[in-house]
Amino acid sequence: MEALSPADLQPILDEIAHAMASATDRGEPATYIPELGCINPDQFGIALCLPGGQVLQAGDAATPFSIQSISKVFTLAIALGRLGDSLWSRVGREPSGLAFNSIVSLEQNNGIPRNPFVNPGAIAVTDAILHGLQPRDVLAELLRFLRTAAEDNDIHIDKDVALSELAHAHRNIAMAEFMAAHGNLQNPSALTIGTYCHQCAVEMSCVQLARAGRFLAGFPDAARLVSPARVRRINALMLTCGHYDASGDFAYRVGLPGKSGVGGGILAIAPGRASIAVWSPGLNAQGNSKLGAEAMEHLAHATGWSVFG
Amino acid sequence: MEALSPADLQPILDEIAHAMASATDRGEPATYIPELGCINPDQFGIALCLPGGQVLQAGDAATPFSIQSISKVFTLAIALGRLGDSLWSRVGREPSGLAFNSIVSLEQNNGIPRNPFVNPGAIAVTDAILHGLQPRDVLAELLRFLRTAAEDNDIHIDKDVALSELAHAHRNIAMAEFMAAHGNLQNPSALTIGTYCHQCAVEMSCVQLARAGRFLAGFPDAARLVSPARVRRINALMLTCGHYDASGDFAYRVGLPGKSGVGGGILAIAPGRASIAVWSPGLNAQGNSKLGAEAMEHLAHATGWSVFG
Amino acid sequence: MEALSPADLQPILDEIAHAMASATDRGEPATYIPELGCINPDQFGIALCLPGGQVLQAGDAATPFSIQSISKVFTLAIALGRLGDSLWSRVGREPSGLAFNSIVSLEQNNGIPRNPFVNPGAIAVTDAILHGLQPRDVLAELLRFLRTAAEDNDIHIDKDVALSELAHAHRNIAMAEFMAAHGNLQNPSALTIGTYCHQCAVEMSCVQLARAGRFLAGFPDAARLVSPARVRRINALMLTCGHYDASGDFAYRVGLPGKSGVGGGILAIAPGRASIAVWSPGLNAQGNSKLGAEAMEHLAHATGWSVFG
Amino acid sequence: MEALSPADLQPILDEIAHAMASATDRGEPATYIPELGCINPDQFGIALCLPGGQVLQAGDAATPFSIQSISKVFTLAIALGRLGDSLWSRVGREPSGLAFNSIVSLEQNNGIPRNPFVNPGAIAVTDAILHGLQPRDVLAELLRFLRTAAEDNDIHIDKDVALSELAHAHRNIAMAEFMAAHGNLQNPSALTIGTYCHQCAVEMSCVQLARAGRFLAGFPDAARLVSPARVRRINALMLTCGHYDASGDFAYRVGLPGKSGVGGGILAIAPGRASIAVWSPGLNAQGNSKLGAEAMEHLAHATGWSVFG
Repeated sequence: MEALSPADLQPILDEIAHAMASATDRGEPATYIPELGCINPDQFGIALCLPGGQVLQAGDAATPFSIQSISKVFTLAIALGRLGDSLWSRVGREPSGLAFNSIVSLEQNNGIPRNPFVNPGAIAVTDAILHGLQPRDVLAELLRFLRTAAEDNDIHIDKDVALSELAHAHRNIAMAEFMAAHGNLQNPSALTIGTYCHQCAVEMSCVQLARAGRFLAGFPDAARLVSPARVRRINALMLTCGHYDASGDFAYRVGLPGKSGVGGGILAIAPGRASIAVWSPGLNAQGNSKLGAEAMEHLAHATGWSVFG
Repeated sequence: MEALSPADLQPILDEIAHAMASATDRGEPATYIPELGCINPDQFGIALCLPGGQVLQAGDAATPFSIQSISKVFTLAIALGRLGDSLWSRVGREPSGLAFNSIVSLEQNNGIPRNPFVNPGAIAVTDAILHGLQPRDVLAELLRFLRTAAEDNDIHIDKDVALSELAHAHRNIAMAEFMAAHGNLQNPSALTIGTYCHQCAVEMSCVQLARAGRFLAGFPDAARLVSPARVRRINALMLTCGHYDASGDFAYRVGLPGKSGVGGGILAIAPGRASIAVWSPGLNAQGNSKLGAEAMEHLAHATGWSVFG
Repeated sequence: MEALSPADLQPILDEIAHAMASATDRGEPATYIPELGCINPDQFGIALCLPGGQVLQAGDAATPFSIQSISKVFTLAIALGRLGDSLWSRVGREPSGLAFNSIVSLEQNNGIPRNPFVNPGAIAVTDAILHGLQPRDVLAELLRFLRTAAEDNDIHIDKDVALSELAHAHRNIAMAEFMAAHGNLQNPSALTIGTYCHQCAVEMSCVQLARAGRFLAGFPDAARLVSPARVRRINALMLTCGHYDASGDFAYRVGLPGKSGVGGGILAIAPGRASIAVWSPGLNAQGNSKLGAEAMEHLAHATGWSVFG
Repeated sequence: MEALSPADLQPILDEIAHAMASATDRGEPATYIPELGCINPDQFGIALCLPGGQVLQAGDAATPFSIQSISKVFTLAIALGRLGDSLWSRVGREPSGLAFNSIVSLEQNNGIPRNPFVNPGAIAVTDAILHGLQPRDVLAELLRFLRTAAEDNDIHIDKDVALSELAHAHRNIAMAEFMAAHGNLQNPSALTIGTYCHQCAVEMSCVQLARAGRFLAGFPDAARLVSPARVRRINALMLTCGHYDASGDFAYRVGLPGKSGVGGGILAIAPGRASIAVWSPGLNAQGNSKLGAEAMEHLAHATGWSVFG
């Protein structure tokens, strides 16, 4: 297939943004923390980065939002860079078949989370990075990674969101303590969960997120951040586990590795072709952005970028 | 990436076959039916088909083996052709996070299997095809599909294997009856399971299987069998669910849509590039061919065919 | 405590029957087989037998109803008489914490049901009795046991109910086949489930059922049927497992060993004091007779017969 | 049955103590906290209290041990006295069918523990008592209750054991936090679990424990502590849930309401007849005292005290 040019792609983005602007069933924003529940659900943005360096966008692509669980992709990249394959002694690589915040599989697997993208798995990853450091060091490293990847220094943590998450973190603390009971936590749960809540509160726009995801798309100079072999593996995990218990459906409909966040963002990767970010605050029943998933499906259909042929 | 030529690929296959011939830890052949347990575990074969029509092979690539659950890919293609998306009212599209023969999720999901590749899901697919027909008609259609896809009429069902499976089919009958209790079975369980046991007993060689899988690789004339949109979706299901509770690991290590069978075969698809079949009877702990999975990993590494970049 | 005389007890029964006659929230009769769903829900009966031979009754105590799962108590007594403690290699003695028809614990326990009163456990018990016999022999033995225990030959199986159950037995067949897959079924599932559906279709009135339960109350000549040691153990199982996932609640409210049936009957035992049967077709959320359980609670309160002090 | 006299019973106790002294398979003491793991497993004690005020004993009946989960019976009595039936909005009354420290059912029941004797249930009970108080107040109230019930002021908390438990309390904290996530915790988890670890560290001898249990046996002046109706209900819960996932087996073998602790103690109640305490540190596979359970079975057999006839 011929590579699509920016001139081919911009109308597609515009059409998607136009269609999403008039959608009536937009899902429901997450309400478990007040700061997310009061976001205007009428917003929609999309941005994509191409191998040649172009950045295309449409809709509210410059509006910052809380990336939430999309941060798990970046902490995983950092953890694999720091620990290599030894990370896999602490967390598995299989879809869980359960909700993102289920504790059941922890009991069935002796405190080993199923994969790095369900909450307990991401907590284990953050805990692994934190070992020997202070939370502020880890958060500084994450911001440094994101700013370098996005080539944009204007990426920050929303402290109010972080503190609000921390005030509603009982279930995540439960998971951390359960892992501690099985020897699978290296730091006090308060430190690990404190760090985790701050990492989820990073604010980025679609443009910033798409730029930050370029290292996963294998663009020419991407390997300076993460090796191609590791990128492939992160993409594989995104495809099989990135949308929790709707990962199979995202693979079926969109056919791209992707990671969703409860803030309404989705990062998807078309290897060699594009890094894509969408955002719309309303969620579907599985906790993923409703319009975001539809936009990705539309885009994959229009571009033929599915990894599956 | 430049397409690899047959001259590039044949040495890779030879090297893989050579390495596998000397492997000492070869896993254990399935023993739940006697006919599978008495297969010589020292065998290994690999074959691949390219868009230009070439077929490469190494090792025992011409030896027929029982394709078992790999048949689920073909019955799914037939069922989608016959019923279209209405099939999804009877079976889900998500990884189960459980073993291939677990009945737990059936109870948790009111008799709806998680995906078409776990046993209850494949039974539902076969049941859907069988509706209004006789078992022999369905099996004739399956053989016709396989022979057409492989362009080889010498593909048959091993009756002894089929009857032996039927004699050990209590767990599959249990799943069919459990679905019947939820209104998710259209035929008497004896007919559906009888058909299912015969479909699993199809014998094919690696060469035949790789040829039969070409329609999934999107080769020039593949669309005469199944449309490109449907092919993408079948590939997505193979990637997320094709290796049961080791699907995530296969995606991580190999990065290709694949489907394993308890007979030791694996069919994998490199979209646009190759249809690949491997076979070695010994299984790993998850019930997938041990050397087969290693061979696929080696091949993906050597060719750079991972869909993930 | 002084033993209560018939003159003390009759007014209590009358008061209970009177209260139940005017109850407005009577639960819902089971509907999974048509024959049970069309029973008039306004009926209520109660009967009790005393050590001195007296039989007291009130309400519709002479109306026959389908004893359904109460039959499990009698087949357990027969199986223990025939096999002794070797029965416990096939079925456990613990509450399941799950619904009566859950198949989950079978998978978690390698085909061994949790106790003899959940459906799979009762099926295993019937299967054990059936071994080496024909279904009609087993059913004849059950009727003989019931008629002897009740000293009443007018106890029969309702063939229409039995056939209707058989036509809706998919879930029970699933359980039998699942046990067969684990080597925990000795007969073809069709024979075992056929027998099981007929045993559940025994018709008895409250008077007949209370009389049949006397051997469990340890009355003077009870030991001719079942030894005191075995009676204690059956009572223990009734108390911990007799009301499925509401057994704890029945023990808490009533304090007597009891066994419910989906036909609306309950048999309860006050050791040394009384054998009690109640019947009202409407069921509560746990599948036990709503008014029946309330009547038992009232009776236990009025008599002080709780085994717990 | 005639009441057994002290002269009848003492030889039975002596015989049991003698038999247990020579037992070779004594189980394994709990090792999850160091203080319990270093107890000499050769010890065995038994004591019982009769309605007439007599206290019989044999073996190491005067040696203090850690009562651990037996404390749950007393906190339940205190909580029911303080809150009445409103306690049941926070905890269920059904056997769980799972291990004492399983978190699975919390997820399945929206943070409501199955019963007051599994760990999360006991934590909810302690949390309910703690509300509005300080931990030291609750512990003082528990000691006051125990000392009054036992008529013995020499009952204390072993601070070393309490602190050691607190240092290994991750799993209990996980449960408390999980309940907090569902709004089923009223105090900070650190306070609740701190209190809970201290309550489990109460030290008592068999004689003290049997004396403290008299209020559950319904002896003449027992009602000054807890009403007869409430006593019956606590006994019912002990019988159905007191030995975790071996409760059914204890009911089957012993036939008395009982509560075990991981320190090797068991308190059992023969309503109207005796309050009984045994202790031996080695545990069986279900986490209950191995010789303790055997001694109770022996005693129930010799006395005919089973509540089941």
